[in-house]
Amino acid sequence: MSKLSINRTTKLCMSLSARPGNFGTRFHNHLYEALGLDYVYKAFSTRDLEGAIHGIRALGIRGCAVSMPFKEACIPMLDSLDPSAEAIGSVNTIVNTVGHLHAYNTDYIAIVRLVAETPIDRDIPFLLTGSGGMAKAVASALRDNGFRNGTIVARNKTTGPALAEACGYRWASGLADAEAGMLINVTPVGMEGGPEVDDLAFPQAMIEAARVVVDAVALPSETPTIKAARVLGKRVVTGAEIQTVQAVEQFILYTGQTPTEEQIAAAAAFAQGKTAA
Amino acid sequence: MSKLSINRTTKLCMSLSARPGNFGTRFHNHLYEALGLDYVYKAFSTRDLEGAIHGIRALGIRGCAVSMPFKEACIPMLDSLDPSAEAIGSVNTIVNTVGHLHAYNTDYIAIVRLVAETPIDRDIPFLLTGSGGMAKAVASALRDNGFRNGTIVARNKTTGPALAEACGYRWASGLADAEAGMLINVTPVGMEGGPEVDDLAFPQAMIEAARVVVDAVALPSETPTIKAARVLGKRVVTGAEIQTVQAVEQFILYTGQTPTEEQIAAAAAFAQGKTAA
Repeated sequence: MSKLSINRTTKLCMSLSARPGNFGTRFHNHLYEALGLDYVYKAFSTRDLEGAIHGIRALGIRGCAVSMPFKEACIPMLDSLDPSAEAIGSVNTIVNTVGHLHAYNTDYIAIVRLVAETPIDRDIPFLLTGSGGMAKAVASALRDNGFRNGTIVARNKTTGPALAEACGYRWASGLADAEAGMLINVTPVGMEGGPEVDDLAFPQAMIEAARVVVDAVALPSETPTIKAARVLGKRVVTGAEIQTVQAVEQFILYTGQTPTEEQIAAAAAFAQGKTAA
Repeated sequence: MSKLSINRTTKLCMSLSARPGNFGTRFHNHLYEALGLDYVYKAFSTRDLEGAIHGIRALGIRGCAVSMPFKEACIPMLDSLDPSAEAIGSVNTIVNTVGHLHAYNTDYIAIVRLVAETPIDRDIPFLLTGSGGMAKAVASALRDNGFRNGTIVARNKTTGPALAEACGYRWASGLADAEAGMLINVTPVGMEGGPEVDDLAFPQAMIEAARVVVDAVALPSETPTIKAARVLGKRVVTGAEIQTVQAVEQFILYTGQTPTEEQIAAAAAFAQGKTAA
């Protein structure tokens, strides 16, 4: 199943983002090989979103992951939206079926799935920091799964209150001294290459008081926040888990095949650079 | 160098045709692996040529082979033409350099190269059957290399005389009883899956009288015409040779790398299905 197995019937899946990473390419190609599927995956960047979407249609490219800054801009160019994308007005996955482009948000789907697997009382007060596209996906997934008692913490006085209002949560411009049972970081705090790579997303005392700590940062997935929570024995959900679950959802949408847990773990380890080919 | 080596920097090359074959995909991917190049190749078909070309630009696809029925239709969508494409108004190769699409005809280039390597008197009378895109490339290459004494044999009373006139050759609507030193078949006679797969492109007596026999049919490359010429000890140029030389030209244009004769032979054998991966 090398590049030499590629032939005229091989289906291409791809990603579109301003600054492509390697996770999707490595994750999907690893699973194609593991499952013996006649697919190949490649990341693209573009300065011409409309031309790129036109190309996806014209070339019969089977699926496309959509990242920043295209998640909302692509919507008018597509044919239909899944409720996961409609709910938040943000697309991260396009599936092309004979020229019909149907769009999903598998971040939303992943959060719904991870929340369902985590035993947490729906009345637990939570704090969610951030108000960008991913924060929208997480907050909407929590709302749609019965979490009522939330606060969106965002300095941005436009997107912060808007997201809070859309989900029926409170808005705060900064981290109050309040306790919360669940803490969710959806800002770049702790992200590799960023100015806050060494920082906690929440004060230590707040982490101590919480039961569940979620961090959407995937690179690295062991952020200072996650490390601190692990030391305290908290239940954690890492950005790597979210990234993997959403990528599995894409994989299933593109191929119709469901990989095993072992296959997913191996592909994720390879995609995160923990194992070689 | 498996599919698992594909990452965000990997360059994609592709082909566009109504009915893609596997030759180009297998040939190029084999050479990418042999030379350790960070490229991957895939064949596409499309019903929307403009969208496909738009996609090539927007996605930064490095190169694109163009086959029937797009060789002339694509020209208005490109930025500039190499003399090889300009000479015959037909494109089979697009090279994308930061969004600038420059087009070539490597069939023309291949014929020029093969003719240069074949010791034939430029005054030799030749018969060329066919008047399609490939016949145009071959006739133009012969004209531009000093062959003066030619007859284009084509039933089509529009394209036949037009090609003959464009190259300064005679036109005949059928194979006369005349002798010719060089016979060139650029029709589907002898082609796999066609109605004339078992036929000679020229009468046996004509083959006997010729010195050189060229057959553009690549599948199979050992056509009845080539076989008959070989038995008679004639110098032959097969469609597989033309196909390989033009693909090497594309490879060099896309990658800037020149493979060795051994690498070319191995890639061609793999692409023709003679060897496994």
